[in-house]
Amino acid sequence: MIIDCHGHYTTSPRELSDYRDRLLGGAHGAKPRISDDQIRESIEPHQLRLQRERGIDLTLFSPTASRMGHELANRSVIQAWTEECNNLVHRARALFPGRFAPVCQLPQSTGGSLDLCVAELRRTVERMGFVGCNLNPDPSGGFWRSKPLGDRHWYPLYEAMVELDVPAMIHAGRACHPALDTTTSHYLGADTTALVQLLHSDVFRNFPAIRFILPHGGGAVPYHWGRLRSITLASGMGHLEDRILGNVWFDTCLYDQAAIDLLLSTIPRENILFGSEALGAVEGNDPRTGHAFDDTRRLVEANATLGSAGKAAVFEHNARRVFPRLKTRPTGSNPGFPGPTPPP
Amino acid sequence: MIIDCHGHYTTSPRELSDYRDRLLGGAHGAKPRISDDQIRESIEPHQLRLQRERGIDLTLFSPTASRMGHELANRSVIQAWTEECNNLVHRARALFPGRFAPVCQLPQSTGGSLDLCVAELRRTVERMGFVGCNLNPDPSGGFWRSKPLGDRHWYPLYEAMVELDVPAMIHAGRACHPALDTTTSHYLGADTTALVQLLHSDVFRNFPAIRFILPHGGGAVPYHWGRLRSITLASGMGHLEDRILGNVWFDTCLYDQAAIDLLLSTIPRENILFGSEALGAVEGNDPRTGHAFDDTRRLVEANATLGSAGKAAVFEHNARRVFPRLKTRPTGSNPGFPGPTPPP
Repeated sequence: MIIDCHGHYTTSPRELSDYRDRLLGGAHGAKPRISDDQIRESIEPHQLRLQRERGIDLTLFSPTASRMGHELANRSVIQAWTEECNNLVHRARALFPGRFAPVCQLPQSTGGSLDLCVAELRRTVERMGFVGCNLNPDPSGGFWRSKPLGDRHWYPLYEAMVELDVPAMIHAGRACHPALDTTTSHYLGADTTALVQLLHSDVFRNFPAIRFILPHGGGAVPYHWGRLRSITLASGMGHLEDRILGNVWFDTCLYDQAAIDLLLSTIPRENILFGSEALGAVEGNDPRTGHAFDDTRRLVEANATLGSAGKAAVFEHNARRVFPRLKTRPTGSNPGFPGPTPPP
Repeated sequence: MIIDCHGHYTTSPRELSDYRDRLLGGAHGAKPRISDDQIRESIEPHQLRLQRERGIDLTLFSPTASRMGHELANRSVIQAWTEECNNLVHRARALFPGRFAPVCQLPQSTGGSLDLCVAELRRTVERMGFVGCNLNPDPSGGFWRSKPLGDRHWYPLYEAMVELDVPAMIHAGRACHPALDTTTSHYLGADTTALVQLLHSDVFRNFPAIRFILPHGGGAVPYHWGRLRSITLASGMGHLEDRILGNVWFDTCLYDQAAIDLLLSTIPRENILFGSEALGAVEGNDPRTGHAFDDTRRLVEANATLGSAGKAAVFEHNARRVFPRLKTRPTGSNPGFPGPTPPP
């Protein structure tokens, strides 16, 4: 079985973004009207087609990261927007049984308390069968105005993650800072920054069972594994591997063979989850190979050293360990979660 | 010949940092008194010993990046500090003939005009034989309060670089932002951010002869070459290679074999300069290999595909193209620049 740990509902119907515009205009009440057919039409020719073409069985599916809206005007707008995005992912999952496992967006805001986030995590996990969440390490979009991830500010969310047994993918949102570009310098910088914040913290000591996924192949981290190993050792923090590999996983959202090979040779394969980010920021065909840039399954399969046990770990078993709510179900039904229930 | 493009005078005598403390206290006049012997003793057992042990012939040598002081109180303090740092590098070069080629720090400040920087570049290059400069893309130390590198704000410096035919290594300084760690997340994030800013700009069209070095193996850039290639193509900017490889070089400051191999297989070898950052942030021996982490020559030599012509390019010839003021001199004298002159 092939599980893609990193997919966003980037093709959601226009009514969703219209709703956002209305929210920003102050009209909180008018929820978007989106039919089941609209959802089907927005997914079948896109994510579902690619799943079929590439032999992806199941995608961990969350709202679009660059539109999480954590930079929006106020907390009630962010909350309403987040609930609508998560509800739509929930409906998409129900319309394509067995194809998507839902991962929620959290109603984060810069410096805001995490009570709304904990409540939304409980709502989506306990009542709607979500299996994980996306955690934005910088709700201010590049200004880094919230506390570092090691700060106790975040602990209420970490406590809920551990209690509910769900991981977080650490995923930045839209860059609002003029120095940064969302899908390149901001995302990759945020991945690296988040890991370093956790490395310097007590989070893994205080939450030994917590699990984070670093997307985009871990930002700069695996490429600079030697640098980080040296600096961690020299700082008296011991071995980098011991500090983080019990709690951090890396996805395979890397778009050429050399990068996939580096990840697979540098990071233990137990800590790697297959991911493609399809459909996301990385589009089109690579003129060098003729293949789609985001067909990362092809690149993982082509790695010379992984072997069949390694592939099974990266493609399926590691994801099941990191997302234990992805339980296997009887054949023909949804693999991986309680049956869909209507959003409360 | 082996040229290391990335070395800092990290071991400078304590009198230099004492001077900085005095400057911050407002006592501008009291310059540090540092003897030639003190300079010799601060370099012989450190940078010079490593050069000899590792067979490095020449190091491009600049003041310590994390102490450039661009975040300091005011421009006159920054200017005085910068001149002193550069003068000390100049003296170190003269005391070890042929071993070091000087690269200057610039008196940058957040949002400040570049007139002081142009003047210091002229002073060090025209009058003291410096061969390049370090350019901090974020003098605010992680807040990114200056204009992006594509903005015309920077053009007076770019004009001077082209006129003087010297490159800039794009190198961040100390992180002042609490979200960031200087030598990991800040440096690597700044490398990536700077490249993306230049990619989205007209700088290379307006300055076709300008040359930049991305340190630390290019931050996250080579590891995410596929991502950047895809996004550049999809944004209508054409091929990433065509956009940047006429003006950007990457150093080899990467501290394990997999990372060096990725760099050498991803980036054309004409665009790679040997660098080690010794002595810098990366210290100690790698317990896996028993070798020093920062002995990057060993890793480049061990690459299976580079070949002797490739090694000659990476170890010497590319550096000579990027730093044309590194002229070969008659045997026994300084390779690379007019004879040392006293700082004006």
